[in-house]
Amino acid sequence: MSRTFQLWMKSIQGEVEVSLQEYLPSVQATPQRLHEAMAYAVLDGGKRVRPLLVFAAGKLFNAPQELLSRAACAVEMIHAYSLVHDDMPCMDDDALRRGKPTVHKKYDEATALLVGDALQAQAFLVLSESEANADQKLPMIQLLAQASGSVGMCGGQAIDLASVGLSLTREQLEQMHRLKTGALLRASVILGAMSGKRLETNEIAALDAYSAAVGLAFQVVDDVLDATADSATLGKTAGKDAADNKPTYVSLLGLEASQQLAQQLCQDAHQALAIFGESAQHLHDLADLIVQRKA
Amino acid sequence: MSRTFQLWMKSIQGEVEVSLQEYLPSVQATPQRLHEAMAYAVLDGGKRVRPLLVFAAGKLFNAPQELLSRAACAVEMIHAYSLVHDDMPCMDDDALRRGKPTVHKKYDEATALLVGDALQAQAFLVLSESEANADQKLPMIQLLAQASGSVGMCGGQAIDLASVGLSLTREQLEQMHRLKTGALLRASVILGAMSGKRLETNEIAALDAYSAAVGLAFQVVDDVLDATADSATLGKTAGKDAADNKPTYVSLLGLEASQQLAQQLCQDAHQALAIFGESAQHLHDLADLIVQRKA
Repeated sequence: MSRTFQLWMKSIQGEVEVSLQEYLPSVQATPQRLHEAMAYAVLDGGKRVRPLLVFAAGKLFNAPQELLSRAACAVEMIHAYSLVHDDMPCMDDDALRRGKPTVHKKYDEATALLVGDALQAQAFLVLSESEANADQKLPMIQLLAQASGSVGMCGGQAIDLASVGLSLTREQLEQMHRLKTGALLRASVILGAMSGKRLETNEIAALDAYSAAVGLAFQVVDDVLDATADSATLGKTAGKDAADNKPTYVSLLGLEASQQLAQQLCQDAHQALAIFGESAQHLHDLADLIVQRKA
Repeated sequence: MSRTFQLWMKSIQGEVEVSLQEYLPSVQATPQRLHEAMAYAVLDGGKRVRPLLVFAAGKLFNAPQELLSRAACAVEMIHAYSLVHDDMPCMDDDALRRGKPTVHKKYDEATALLVGDALQAQAFLVLSESEANADQKLPMIQLLAQASGSVGMCGGQAIDLASVGLSLTREQLEQMHRLKTGALLRASVILGAMSGKRLETNEIAALDAYSAAVGLAFQVVDDVLDATADSATLGKTAGKDAADNKPTYVSLLGLEASQQLAQQLCQDAHQALAIFGESAQHLHDLADLIVQRKA
């Protein structure tokens, strides 16, 4: 990982933290407890992979900073809400997230439900509320809604739930992940690029190929880490997939083949970016980061 | 209730039912069970008060039909998602809704959670997905997000949860309802009017006064019905507020004073519409309907 990339990453992560604070409702405003819980769910945690993808893709076409920031925060709020709801007892029933008690443990289940619901609304508010770049925003909101909903992230969750205890084929596992995590990762990339200009068909195709490879690699690495790392490193309960009898790449292909697959997908991601030249440097770096991460 | 109004109401309810079907994801599409459960939560039920308000307010400025229809369906999807989540065990734990088993009873809790999440995304998708009237849509999306989120409907829910077992003042009770149900009823009225044109300050003020009165009347009547009607008539569990020890207008003011308050609010609603003349006829009729309803 180059020093330039590391510095860029830190600066984006810092900027996103400040923007998230700014775009969340004030914790002084009523209802305070809900607003505190929303901030707890969103702030001071996570690698901010999706915002990094938004900003990296924004580099392709010199997208304006405010629009990128709004898109990045909107995507991150959607991601954060999905984690809050996923951790609830009726879903994954998890007590630990990013090294801290999950929202329903720290507060209560009803609050966790409302935190997720309110964060989703907040995401669409953040993306819609300034009048700047109005003509670009409508298709961006549409993309985010599609990626979050029943044919995107929520749909992937539903397939995931239905597949516990079943032996999925590799194709079925892939389809599940394409929706569950892939849809929002793709949205991050496309939203970043759309913040710069209206995209050409070949540009969308290249970004789709990149997103598909990175999204899948992300999941394969997640499965590898779940099988090999400990809870302290992960900041969440390790070994949970096996314990829950969930199908994973490791259970399907074995550990070594999964690691090889992640490497192959990483190469696919690099190749997909060829048409963009040097403006895609940070997207290249992020592909490497996602495959080489340890947590 | 005039024959003209009754016919109009039936035609809007029919039109909304068809549009909701059209704007929901196909039940043939994957994941089918989630899509079935979304349709179960939204279709074939309810009085469609919010869509009626959208279309009635649309009459003020001759709003285009498709935009009204999208706004009406978006608001109704938000309303439907909130009912699905409210009924869950960690919230109101209710088994009956619109005379049918609630979503988590008919399906399961995890599905109910995802149905609500996906319906919220679908609401924003419906409002954003056509390019027609693009300039009007961005502020409409903003309004819907605000009315649904932590300073609107979700915020009202949070205050409601926090107030179980407490003795609220009338002002506190009013603030809770202004957010919990009032915000989305107001959004329905304003969205309908905004579908026609960019609103002047005095027009917004008049519609706010109308919405505030109708919204509060709606809640007072709800409390009266919960105390006086039976479950079969209501299509949901009656007497639940008292059983849950929730503060209501009836517990605070008594039955008779609550009924008088509803009448007074209805008059306030009529007065607020004065500046619109005859174009507000259906908004007048809806105020009467909301106060005189029996379920």
